[in-house]
Amino acid sequence: MPRVVVHVMPKPEILDPQGKAVAAALPRLGFEGIASVRQGKRFELEVEGEVTEQVLASLREAAETLLSNPVIEDVVSIDVEDAADGKARA
Amino acid sequence: MPRVVVHVMPKPEILDPQGKAVAAALPRLGFEGIASVRQGKRFELEVEGEVTEQVLASLREAAETLLSNPVIEDVVSIDVEDAADGKARA
Repeated sequence: MPRVVVHVMPKPEILDPQGKAVAAALPRLGFEGIASVRQGKRFELEVEGEVTEQVLASLREAAETLLSNPVIEDVVSIDVEDAADGKARA
Repeated sequence: MPRVVVHVMPKPEILDPQGKAVAAALPRLGFEGIASVRQGKRFELEVEGEVTEQVLASLREAAETLLSNPVIEDVVSIDVEDAADGKARA
């Protein structure tokens, strides 16, 4: 079953408290050299049947409306990958 | 400044209520043909200086311990990309 992976990140101008918390915790745990961290979301959608251009357009709309909040988030990328081989995870 | 992107997903055997909620909302909003949805996290870490093998190993450890909860989550991938062009490098 083909899989579509949608990446959503907070817009650059939006404060990201989760990312800030991670960035503050890293040096406390001994991990140095990280300037900043932003935390977003990754959705894996299993698609029934072929991922046609039409399906992808519909998924793009779903990503912009349901999977992300366009006021504060950007859809960074929408990748199609074959779940069978599990490869091309990006 | 190079960027390292860490992808974290709930383990397959773990119930994912956020993903389930999205999967249930999709057909209600007119998006059909999605069998299932899983929701995970995407972290973007801006690294100071070069991303050497040593830095990457340290980041891998941070991903396994701080960015993910190994009891319920898997680190799916750790990608290095150049923040300048936004393209994937490794």
